[in-house]
Amino acid sequence: MPRSRELTRQRILDAAYLLFRSRGYARVSIGDIAAASTITKRTLYRHFDSKDVILEEVLKAQHRLALAASRTLSHFSDSTDDLVDALFADIVAWSATPRWAGSGFTRLVVELADFPGHPAHAIARKHKAMLEVHVANQLKRLNVASPAERARQIWVLAEGAMVSMLIHRDPAYVEIAADAAKELLLRERRYKRRTS
Amino acid sequence: MPRSRELTRQRILDAAYLLFRSRGYARVSIGDIAAASTITKRTLYRHFDSKDVILEEVLKAQHRLALAASRTLSHFSDSTDDLVDALFADIVAWSATPRWAGSGFTRLVVELADFPGHPAHAIARKHKAMLEVHVANQLKRLNVASPAERARQIWVLAEGAMVSMLIHRDPAYVEIAADAAKELLLRERRYKRRTS
Repeated sequence: MPRSRELTRQRILDAAYLLFRSRGYARVSIGDIAAASTITKRTLYRHFDSKDVILEEVLKAQHRLALAASRTLSHFSDSTDDLVDALFADIVAWSATPRWAGSGFTRLVVELADFPGHPAHAIARKHKAMLEVHVANQLKRLNVASPAERARQIWVLAEGAMVSMLIHRDPAYVEIAADAAKELLLRERRYKRRTS
Repeated sequence: MPRSRELTRQRILDAAYLLFRSRGYARVSIGDIAAASTITKRTLYRHFDSKDVILEEVLKAQHRLALAASRTLSHFSDSTDDLVDALFADIVAWSATPRWAGSGFTRLVVELADFPGHPAHAIARKHKAMLEVHVANQLKRLNVASPAERARQIWVLAEGAMVSMLIHRDPAYVEIAADAAKELLLRERRYKRRTS
């Protein structure tokens, strides 16, 4: 792909990412994306066939970024409490940013719930599964029994905390979710100690 | 209000409810609502000033229905496990219906996240708080310590389970959330027994 073509393509994807992040999917048109990329719709269509294809590329790029971040993440928690605190403190900090709309992947899945075949679903599923595995690996390293099951429970709590934050705009929901995660992991550790 | 006027108004709200439930908010236009109510847009505007006002009325009606249902609910659980099973089994059964899009209130909050002043948020907040109080009352009756805090944790798990169901379309996420809820309540009961 010639360099200038690739730059235009990237400019479109960057503009689309910002628009989708702030407004979701349905309220962004191809015209909006073209305008934000300062190109004509005609030029945009030379790069992408549809808004769906743009969304797919944007989500894939976000997933790749998150995957790279999770692989190079230098923060390793010393205890399950540290791990839970880091995870839920991130949600509190993130949700305090202006016009926060929760997880972008979750938002798209919710917005496109009546189109289960939309490619956004498969990418979101892959993305969330990756995050779950990342937590499971940390729990394993901390000698938590049933790390995969516990990681899944912690992710369900994290998703619930983010949605509850959007509903109530009250960090108490995130704190109480973190408390629940810590209790569940504490039980598990005690159980493991008893049986080992 | 004359009877015929009230009937038309109700027909508009019923049609809007079905459209919002299947497509969310952004992808439904005033024209769609008028067409589904088999009236003209001109007639519709004699009843409602905007799509926002219609949404507000639809949500208020849904909240009133849920409130009435929670007050007359005859099912009282005999144990915390029963209560959790009933709650999460409802999510599994509900999510198996075609084109299920999760909680309608949650979906609107997520879709309108970048409009925090939209009236939908206040109604959703009220609705979710009511559901939380309903669970807290049952936990209190079952002698669970800290019923308000535990009810909140259970609701965070329920919201997380619904979102995870939308992402993964796999009931294992709901089951693992129910297991977490039971464990948290079991701890609490034991704690109470020890200290009482």
